[in-house]
Amino acid sequence: MARWDPGAEDRLRKAALELFREQGYDAVTVTQIAERAGLTRRSFFRYFPDKREVFFAGSDQLPPAMADAVRAAGGDVFAAVAEVGARMVEVIDQPAERRAIIDGSTELQERERTKMAAVTAAVEGVLRERGVDAVRARLLAQTGVVVFQNAYAQWLGSGTPFPEAVRAATTAIREAMDGKGPAS
Amino acid sequence: MARWDPGAEDRLRKAALELFREQGYDAVTVTQIAERAGLTRRSFFRYFPDKREVFFAGSDQLPPAMADAVRAAGGDVFAAVAEVGARMVEVIDQPAERRAIIDGSTELQERERTKMAAVTAAVEGVLRERGVDAVRARLLAQTGVVVFQNAYAQWLGSGTPFPEAVRAATTAIREAMDGKGPAS
Repeated sequence: MARWDPGAEDRLRKAALELFREQGYDAVTVTQIAERAGLTRRSFFRYFPDKREVFFAGSDQLPPAMADAVRAAGGDVFAAVAEVGARMVEVIDQPAERRAIIDGSTELQERERTKMAAVTAAVEGVLRERGVDAVRARLLAQTGVVVFQNAYAQWLGSGTPFPEAVRAATTAIREAMDGKGPAS
Repeated sequence: MARWDPGAEDRLRKAALELFREQGYDAVTVTQIAERAGLTRRSFFRYFPDKREVFFAGSDQLPPAMADAVRAAGGDVFAAVAEVGARMVEVIDQPAERRAIIDGSTELQERERTKMAAVTAAVEGVLRERGVDAVRARLLAQTGVVVFQNAYAQWLGSGTPFPEAVRAATTAIREAMDGKGPAS
């Protein structure tokens, strides 16, 4: 199979997701993924450096996308979260299956945390550029990522539109801080 | 050296911290740590399973301590964060050196994220017990951990007492969510 096989990358992603769902992430080999996609193991490595990357491909776009959105929103992290999330959920493929696979693998959870740490660092960088002090920039960036993840879970669990889920999450945090949360 | 050598564990921790600071975490071997502490490599492994654990020893206490504090505070995550943090900063050894070493090592940063994920899970569990729904329990637990880390950074950077740093962090988040943050 040649590098210019136009559908190869998509077939590999689809085959990986199927196999991970069927057998669990840890049990699946690169060879199996390649075979299911009608390709060789060598072809797999033309497209992805390792087994994790076939799963997280595209996630490298999230840190710069979030940074751009924070800039465009004049430093409003939560507006940026709503905007980027709304775009992301339009294009994401088989989100429930992906979530279940991540939840079943320590390795993928670790990778997801690293991915979100990169988003945090990107947002933090934009806030620092805008003159926000270091401690506060980190705080707002981390809170933005927490809201992002939570809104995503709400969208996934109940179909709440992303911007609405962001508002619900920010309201819940604010209420908890005011001592009016359901847990207090 | 026998297992009942009373000072051995402390000497190993101190030796590790010194060596990590001098040479960087990645460059230091278990053998070096043991030698600096006047012990053998074999003795090291009587106390710690690997090089990371000599650095993070004691951190296993944080998830249950936080869970207990959330229960004692009637589900108020931020009160629990203030209380546990205040106790923690009383006993922590060479915090600035520890922070610098973590910031210099990808491996330690990953381990720290895993550690904080365990704290998040513990707090989330207590909130679930108290009848908080899954999405909100996760949101409050994650926000609590963000506030904890931020208050710790404030304490470390400027000596702000922990409970005061928690109040400053929660206020900063609330203001940002009200659109009154310095970045908006």
